[in-house]
Amino acid sequence: MQNLTVIKIGGNVIDNETSLTTFLEKFADLPTPKILIHGGGKIATKTAEKLGISTQMVEGRRITDQAMLEVAMMVYAGLINKNIVAQLQARGSRALGLTGADLDLIRADKRPVKAVDYGWVGDVKSINVAQLDYLLKGNITPVFCALSHNGQGQMLNTNADTIASEVAIAMSDLYAVNLVFCFEKRGVLLDVNDESSVINQLNDSDYQMLKSQGAIHSGMIPKLDNAFAAIRAGVKKVIIRAPEIADSQGTTILG
Amino acid sequence: MQNLTVIKIGGNVIDNETSLTTFLEKFADLPTPKILIHGGGKIATKTAEKLGISTQMVEGRRITDQAMLEVAMMVYAGLINKNIVAQLQARGSRALGLTGADLDLIRADKRPVKAVDYGWVGDVKSINVAQLDYLLKGNITPVFCALSHNGQGQMLNTNADTIASEVAIAMSDLYAVNLVFCFEKRGVLLDVNDESSVINQLNDSDYQMLKSQGAIHSGMIPKLDNAFAAIRAGVKKVIIRAPEIADSQGTTILG
Repeated sequence: MQNLTVIKIGGNVIDNETSLTTFLEKFADLPTPKILIHGGGKIATKTAEKLGISTQMVEGRRITDQAMLEVAMMVYAGLINKNIVAQLQARGSRALGLTGADLDLIRADKRPVKAVDYGWVGDVKSINVAQLDYLLKGNITPVFCALSHNGQGQMLNTNADTIASEVAIAMSDLYAVNLVFCFEKRGVLLDVNDESSVINQLNDSDYQMLKSQGAIHSGMIPKLDNAFAAIRAGVKKVIIRAPEIADSQGTTILG
Repeated sequence: MQNLTVIKIGGNVIDNETSLTTFLEKFADLPTPKILIHGGGKIATKTAEKLGISTQMVEGRRITDQAMLEVAMMVYAGLINKNIVAQLQARGSRALGLTGADLDLIRADKRPVKAVDYGWVGDVKSINVAQLDYLLKGNITPVFCALSHNGQGQMLNTNADTIASEVAIAMSDLYAVNLVFCFEKRGVLLDVNDESSVINQLNDSDYQMLKSQGAIHSGMIPKLDNAFAAIRAGVKKVIIRAPEIADSQGTTILG
């Protein structure tokens, strides 16, 4: 099987122009096929504020009313995505900016209303593997933002970690996928205040233990849940690390 | 040669939800290959106002400073483009939203500063025919907004009529292209206040005469210049008409 690299970058890279440029230079140099998935960062929140729209968060997830969805479409799919695409093109990457609506690549269901109504938030239902592979076969580098659609004309806000994980899992039918989550730390840390405490390899039983001890908590939990879901579902390698590609080796997730 | 339909829709369609939905229903039913190019409408101006950015216009063209470029990226490439893509997907079209930066499809030069500095406005330099054809060969329907790039990381605002014309001309190497400009009138009118005065066929000498008489003026001139440029450069058919596809026949431009 041919290798495929799927890299997710988060807000810490997006929000800092220097970090983003440095990352994109390195990303452009990686061999194809490769897929980039980016989060939104603080620009969406700031743009919403400027437009007089207040942002509601529950358990680290944005509540997406109609006004917030439009901000997400503008900032994720417009401003950030096209900035990344233009920069990658300048570095010789055949980049193509995408949402899940484009080519019906990522279809999602609106999250059911239970204790919380997340609004226009989608849980991934299917990845269009054949269509995505048509792009990769054309030496095209897909660049996804964190938006999907329901197939009936409705755009949906979808967590970028989840998109990365679902894309990596789906493409594992055709490729040996290396999935990399880049975030603000050098890896999963035993002590969140000590950057040298990177856990080189993490298996599920250690993860459960660290979680129950409270050493791993809050935002790391959905990220690691996505990472373990990916490795269990056939993704070849899953790594959590800082965006500086040459830097640390980060944390390898063991299935 | 296979037929290719290139349709440009303007602000009058974008700004009215019913018009847009009606148009997209009909567009989705057209045979492939086809390409859609859309303008921005009033949403960009309104969004800029909400963000406290003032819009400067010179001769019907927006002056694009950095703040306005970001609004254009957000509204054209994010909000409007992805809304159109999601709606087309719901109607079975394999739509792909694009700017000129994606796949390096439309490269432009920043317009030189003469009497007016238009800011981040680009004049089209090249269309990536091979890459666009790869999409069409995959039964993909490209949906362009009015943005290009300079190949060095800079996005540029580019007139949608011009993009339509340049794409139609470039694709005429491979296809018999039908280029349709949809706008708010039923066609080019002899009397702008009389919708029944549609000129069925317009050649260049009549155009020059009507222009010198002042019967054709202001916004129609760049549109017709693009239309004549297209027909002269090998586009098979150029029509200017209302968006209602079954409605009038509009004005056919004669080379």
